[in-house]
Amino acid sequence: MVKVGVVGATGYAGLELLRLLACHPGAEVTTLTSRQHVGARVDELFPHLRGVYDLRYVAPDALSACQVVFFATPHGAAMAQAPALVASGTRVIDLSADFRLHDPAIYKRWYQHDHTCPDLLAEAVYGWPERHREAIRTARVVGNPGCYPTAVQIALLPLVEAGVIDASHIIADCTSGVSGAGRTLRENLLYCETADSFHAYAVAGHRHSAEMDQELGEAAGSAVRVLFVPHLAPLIRGIHATVYVRLTDPQVNLQSLFETRYAGERFVDVLPAGGCPDTRDVRGANLCRVAVHRPAGGDTAVVLATIDNLVKGASGQAVQCFNLMFGFDECTALDAPALWP
Amino acid sequence: MVKVGVVGATGYAGLELLRLLACHPGAEVTTLTSRQHVGARVDELFPHLRGVYDLRYVAPDALSACQVVFFATPHGAAMAQAPALVASGTRVIDLSADFRLHDPAIYKRWYQHDHTCPDLLAEAVYGWPERHREAIRTARVVGNPGCYPTAVQIALLPLVEAGVIDASHIIADCTSGVSGAGRTLRENLLYCETADSFHAYAVAGHRHSAEMDQELGEAAGSAVRVLFVPHLAPLIRGIHATVYVRLTDPQVNLQSLFETRYAGERFVDVLPAGGCPDTRDVRGANLCRVAVHRPAGGDTAVVLATIDNLVKGASGQAVQCFNLMFGFDECTALDAPALWP
Amino acid sequence: MVKVGVVGATGYAGLELLRLLACHPGAEVTTLTSRQHVGARVDELFPHLRGVYDLRYVAPDALSACQVVFFATPHGAAMAQAPALVASGTRVIDLSADFRLHDPAIYKRWYQHDHTCPDLLAEAVYGWPERHREAIRTARVVGNPGCYPTAVQIALLPLVEAGVIDASHIIADCTSGVSGAGRTLRENLLYCETADSFHAYAVAGHRHSAEMDQELGEAAGSAVRVLFVPHLAPLIRGIHATVYVRLTDPQVNLQSLFETRYAGERFVDVLPAGGCPDTRDVRGANLCRVAVHRPAGGDTAVVLATIDNLVKGASGQAVQCFNLMFGFDECTALDAPALWP
Amino acid sequence: MVKVGVVGATGYAGLELLRLLACHPGAEVTTLTSRQHVGARVDELFPHLRGVYDLRYVAPDALSACQVVFFATPHGAAMAQAPALVASGTRVIDLSADFRLHDPAIYKRWYQHDHTCPDLLAEAVYGWPERHREAIRTARVVGNPGCYPTAVQIALLPLVEAGVIDASHIIADCTSGVSGAGRTLRENLLYCETADSFHAYAVAGHRHSAEMDQELGEAAGSAVRVLFVPHLAPLIRGIHATVYVRLTDPQVNLQSLFETRYAGERFVDVLPAGGCPDTRDVRGANLCRVAVHRPAGGDTAVVLATIDNLVKGASGQAVQCFNLMFGFDECTALDAPALWP
Repeated sequence: MVKVGVVGATGYAGLELLRLLACHPGAEVTTLTSRQHVGARVDELFPHLRGVYDLRYVAPDALSACQVVFFATPHGAAMAQAPALVASGTRVIDLSADFRLHDPAIYKRWYQHDHTCPDLLAEAVYGWPERHREAIRTARVVGNPGCYPTAVQIALLPLVEAGVIDASHIIADCTSGVSGAGRTLRENLLYCETADSFHAYAVAGHRHSAEMDQELGEAAGSAVRVLFVPHLAPLIRGIHATVYVRLTDPQVNLQSLFETRYAGERFVDVLPAGGCPDTRDVRGANLCRVAVHRPAGGDTAVVLATIDNLVKGASGQAVQCFNLMFGFDECTALDAPALWP
Repeated sequence: MVKVGVVGATGYAGLELLRLLACHPGAEVTTLTSRQHVGARVDELFPHLRGVYDLRYVAPDALSACQVVFFATPHGAAMAQAPALVASGTRVIDLSADFRLHDPAIYKRWYQHDHTCPDLLAEAVYGWPERHREAIRTARVVGNPGCYPTAVQIALLPLVEAGVIDASHIIADCTSGVSGAGRTLRENLLYCETADSFHAYAVAGHRHSAEMDQELGEAAGSAVRVLFVPHLAPLIRGIHATVYVRLTDPQVNLQSLFETRYAGERFVDVLPAGGCPDTRDVRGANLCRVAVHRPAGGDTAVVLATIDNLVKGASGQAVQCFNLMFGFDECTALDAPALWP
Repeated sequence: MVKVGVVGATGYAGLELLRLLACHPGAEVTTLTSRQHVGARVDELFPHLRGVYDLRYVAPDALSACQVVFFATPHGAAMAQAPALVASGTRVIDLSADFRLHDPAIYKRWYQHDHTCPDLLAEAVYGWPERHREAIRTARVVGNPGCYPTAVQIALLPLVEAGVIDASHIIADCTSGVSGAGRTLRENLLYCETADSFHAYAVAGHRHSAEMDQELGEAAGSAVRVLFVPHLAPLIRGIHATVYVRLTDPQVNLQSLFETRYAGERFVDVLPAGGCPDTRDVRGANLCRVAVHRPAGGDTAVVLATIDNLVKGASGQAVQCFNLMFGFDECTALDAPALWP
Repeated sequence: MVKVGVVGATGYAGLELLRLLACHPGAEVTTLTSRQHVGARVDELFPHLRGVYDLRYVAPDALSACQVVFFATPHGAAMAQAPALVASGTRVIDLSADFRLHDPAIYKRWYQHDHTCPDLLAEAVYGWPERHREAIRTARVVGNPGCYPTAVQIALLPLVEAGVIDASHIIADCTSGVSGAGRTLRENLLYCETADSFHAYAVAGHRHSAEMDQELGEAAGSAVRVLFVPHLAPLIRGIHATVYVRLTDPQVNLQSLFETRYAGERFVDVLPAGGCPDTRDVRGANLCRVAVHRPAGGDTAVVLATIDNLVKGASGQAVQCFNLMFGFDECTALDAPALWP
């Protein structure tokens, strides 16, 4: 049993890790940390875990006894603690943004503070198994992808790898459920102000676009620029990406391109031609369902992708990385069907 | 008091007409028709109208005593009944698609049957007050705009009139609440399959795009082509349009362009620069709130527009046309603030 | 025009007052106060009010120029400010609990602090028009009923007045929408923790039961004890009360009793026998719909009552009192139909 | 591997069976029947099952090759097919009402038609493991409890077994999510008419009360009468029962009574004193969380119970019975934590 610690197990992503790891035959969650709740039992704060976990939150110094620590924290926490953990032989899977962007300057531009461990950043692997599977297996530090980037990048990867689109004019119009904003006390996340409501936000620029540009640029071998506009919808879970690209190769068979690229991928489901994936069809599941369209045979392709932002968009993908890092079958604890309806 | 008839007052748009007209000092709803429910009292079928209306549904032949008849019906019904009504001096406001598309051939392409009264279609006025106000005043037949076109066209009108965008590459990424699908018995409109769910549909082509191309093309004075992708979100009411356009004039002051175009319009609210309209802010109100962005100062502008699909997107706009047609102040019965939260 | 001030116009009840008063021909909202937001424009904080109000929040000392001040505040605020306002001739309508309970000792028991103006409390009128209409007309201070009590008391009033039930064993099982909890930053009011969720709370005792016991005891002329259990449901608006009473008079005609008692009441709608009112049927409307059942002809009657907690359960009822106090028709600004769907 | 057939695998309970059985190491779903969809692939109709099942629906005659058949059908279907299946050695777990009520006369009273196989009814076991565990192990036919009865009976069982309440005056005030109404095309189950809405129904009498009276009467050893009032709330899943009972033994220690009764039960969780279970805390889980209160130390106890109506209230409980019938650990495929949030 791999000894596992979770930092931030009072937020939605951290709690989702606990849900998934509870069914993992090779992982034992031994340590939960919370500065605010040291001493409290997790199932007293979160009664849905009664009968599943009876751990108490402890202070962060207990983490070094773990073989792996997941950080499900706001940015800044992981890079503060990771160097010491790694030095003591503990591997790190960071669900925050601290180890996603390779370039510390870009990190600083979007997060307004210096990266405090650029050396570790340099060796960190971006935890996107569909592209970096082998590197993840041996990584000491994994930077788990953001929720929006997971959906958008899966939607675009076959296209940029094949070089069949205008990479400077990509539009990613995305919609997220409210859990994507975290367990944060803000008026606009209250039920009354989110239910029966829909709006765009961060139109001027969103941190996740840096990640998309980096990963897709690497895959393309040249610069990629995604115009990314996020929206908030009254869903608990779910991200839907509608991606618009201008085709530069009018002959390309899009359906075949996607099916071929994702043929061996257990967690990417390419729908038959004409399909429209629904967020409900991935609720609770570690899965990206994707479909590609070319309306009226024109020069613009439309790719649709859906994930559960807390699973394939966060904690499920983190467990997928964990499985790779510790030699488990990649699907372990990740094969439950969606909760439908 | 203008005597008003409503055909289809068992659907959401028809019932919304009744809600709005109940507060209109110059309109008297005298006739409700329903083949299925002849003889039933409207407030028995719809208890929210207890104390507001005690009419019984009657057969359609009673409509000729009305000065105006609203059709809130599926397509086909209005064009079957309108000629006789108009001949008898009754004016028609059609909320369906029967009198929106000027060209019968285009109508047939999208609705799969011939238009049965092309003469009346030729004189019908498209009921978009922000563009056709004067023609509406004297129209005998008004084709009320669709819900999506209302939002998309308001978002694009200043841009196409000014000729500052590439009119052949417009993307309208839209999201609708469920009432936009009508009071239709389909599994995918059941609560359990719509709540906590989000998906695109009709990516290959949606009837409303014909209307957008027609109206915006007329406003531009040349062909306009909108790539329109609709989505369904778990909202009762609301449409949100996110429109992406490539600017051909990099010097244009977008904020000023929008504020100037809509300066005198009571039912279009241009938000201050940087704003993001929310569907909740127009819930129940006859209002389109619109905002224009230019992310990172690039060549793509993003216009956001929100309406309540049942009000400015259907019945409210129809009452706005009614006010114009019968000499009332355009705001009569339409000035209630949004229901918030 | 009556000059109106609103204290607490940043919460849901205060904003609902603004919505309703915007359509009142005899009221002019001149003053909004907020310690936190002095100087801010209300329509900047709340864009749904753009085009409706352009007031700025001011400090509380500006209220004395108003003829009436509504308090839509947490308990404690109204009793701190009311004495000075009343002394200067300003009338007060308090939506909080400060002026509801006649006995300062009972107030202290439930709210854990002394009542600071018992003299004003002694003259305050409980703002329940269906029982205290005449006293409200001349009141200087009105204590507007709580949301749950409004529904429960309307459900029980005919029964306790007629003396046909066991007044010591009444069960009021109630469900509220989330806006009833106010615009409060608590994790359990976040969208993700309220959507798709239902639970009871305050089973050991809720402050509103004191109010029910007081008002129903007065109406009965003897002690009444309501066992009140509230629940929270994923509704924005709405309260549903299911009240169970043991009948002491097996001959009573319940339907007739209710219809007779509420015959002249514009804002209480007694459904036909067998009806089940739905919260959606009163959404946004100042209305209580009520139905009375006697399952299997047994000794227990079940009364169902629904209100919109922000309208008949708060701000609408306050405007109803305002209308009585200032000589307007009781329905002024309160006759809009429900927003349905 | 036990060969399993599912009749009605196009409804919510049938699909939930597929979800749960997909993770069962000892069950193989071999046969899905549907008259309407013979020949269609289940994952074409229900894309959330892509990658999980690739079965096609077949005609009912294929069921006899199964060792067990689950019926997730409207009442009437199971009793039509069960006799032949049982005769051929196939065991039956019926999620409908056909085998719940022991007395054919009571069945007829509530379902308006004769029971067509009273002999099989006589031997059928009511599939409530917490009371009939041993009988279920060897049953040929199991009548799986209804959703409401599951919650209400678990809430009441300790009290009626102990004989500490007035069994003729029990009130069960219950609220269900919309999936409890099945995948049925009715206007009042459409999103727009269920979202943001709450109402009671069937106040005059609901079929499930017969089941409660039967099971609780047997447990009590004397007649029990439950006054049951159901409500519909905008939840996809979840049942909440608030049960009011008059105590006849004022000395009883309620908390201890419940903890003792359910000490060994894996799927009943008695909350600590003062707790209020939330439907979200059992979402997707085969669990009833229950709490017992005695407000103000009075003569009335309030028991709260929550289940997921599709899991412990239907398909999960059916799998629990399956596990007992085929010698699996009772928790097999049923130990996943709740999906939260």
